[in-house]
Amino acid sequence: MSAPTIETLCERLRAFVTERDWDQFHAPKSLAMSVTIEAAELAEHFQWLPTGAPEELVPGQTVKIGEEMADVLLYLIRLADKLDIDLPAAADRKLDLNAIKYPVAKSRGRSTKYTEL
Amino acid sequence: MSAPTIETLCERLRAFVTERDWDQFHAPKSLAMSVTIEAAELAEHFQWLPTGAPEELVPGQTVKIGEEMADVLLYLIRLADKLDIDLPAAADRKLDLNAIKYPVAKSRGRSTKYTEL
Amino acid sequence: MSAPTIETLCERLRAFVTERDWDQFHAPKSLAMSVTIEAAELAEHFQWLPTGAPEELVPGQTVKIGEEMADVLLYLIRLADKLDIDLPAAADRKLDLNAIKYPVAKSRGRSTKYTEL
Amino acid sequence: MSAPTIETLCERLRAFVTERDWDQFHAPKSLAMSVTIEAAELAEHFQWLPTGAPEELVPGQTVKIGEEMADVLLYLIRLADKLDIDLPAAADRKLDLNAIKYPVAKSRGRSTKYTEL
Repeated sequence: MSAPTIETLCERLRAFVTERDWDQFHAPKSLAMSVTIEAAELAEHFQWLPTGAPEELVPGQTVKIGEEMADVLLYLIRLADKLDIDLPAAADRKLDLNAIKYPVAKSRGRSTKYTEL
Repeated sequence: MSAPTIETLCERLRAFVTERDWDQFHAPKSLAMSVTIEAAELAEHFQWLPTGAPEELVPGQTVKIGEEMADVLLYLIRLADKLDIDLPAAADRKLDLNAIKYPVAKSRGRSTKYTEL
Repeated sequence: MSAPTIETLCERLRAFVTERDWDQFHAPKSLAMSVTIEAAELAEHFQWLPTGAPEELVPGQTVKIGEEMADVLLYLIRLADKLDIDLPAAADRKLDLNAIKYPVAKSRGRSTKYTEL
Repeated sequence: MSAPTIETLCERLRAFVTERDWDQFHAPKSLAMSVTIEAAELAEHFQWLPTGAPEELVPGQTVKIGEEMADVLLYLIRLADKLDIDLPAAADRKLDLNAIKYPVAKSRGRSTKYTEL
């Protein structure tokens, strides 16, 4: 079976929300807050690890981490849908912007923020 | 032009990172932290708004919000790549799990967490 | 009994950590990450509420919210201790700075960020 | 000059907010969101560092870190005030609870969550 696209996930989410009559709860502010909450649940897996490299994880932890990443992605897709934002196109454009903000010559091998390059 | 898939974005990110020799900074712990940081920058747009509905936003703000959402998505894709997690498949599976955790009959019209349903 | 000061809480935390030999886990990066994780657990209480005003909360929820707030505060105090930062003095100074960034005449009744005032 | 207590900071914040007529913006949900936003700005200082130990920081960075910590603390104090929560007492009680959740014998030298001890 082929991987679902962001569009397919968006459609599944819409159906899920409609069936449960949950659209009433999905104010963009609440969805943005949900993205930060799920992002923190993802971060919790790495809280006390030195680097989070695969060899530091316990067996089965990658599956759990994948579930938390999925939650972040799903709320992100839902928020994009509510605000009529084309998320894949925005990500593509952001990569173009980042290439300008971080020219290879200036940023190679450095983690400095673009405002201080 | 058709929308990029998560796979395409992942490929672009890899090339971007390799060109800048940034892989050395991309410990999973740092990437997970980056997801929370970008999620908070997204949340900042909604901080003082009542609900964040489109009519509360100033002109041009949706573009900025799209850029912050893109940052969250890009770090998420990067982290998935580093941990060898199939992000679209994980999201698809999470939706299946959520359908079990939140049966329509019990959760319809209610925002209660599944642990308290 | 009088309320504990930040200094007293800092002392109690130090003893708590020493007894458990937990100082080895308390890298500033991990403590800063912990502050965001606990902040998100606090936010979870307000995720689906319109405003979070006391009348929207269920009985006993304020106690739970207080516990999450305590977690944020305790990690904050612990991080300050590890970096030798005088947290109460820093907060006092930040209020002075904010008074300059947000002059009453310009910011009265407006939620605009100081960079756009 | 002696360090300000949480009570003193709370009083200063109240005056600050009243002068600017900002109480109208301080819904608990927005304040809780603000705690996560400021926590992420604090985390940003440690994003690409291995551990965030003092020797990894650039000169002057501790002052900046102190300012971000102050922002987290100030929003926390403000939220406690709005919900009538005694923050220092809650922190004191939380330390008592933690001592029960993490008995020395079981948790010594281990970063395991209490639910898995």
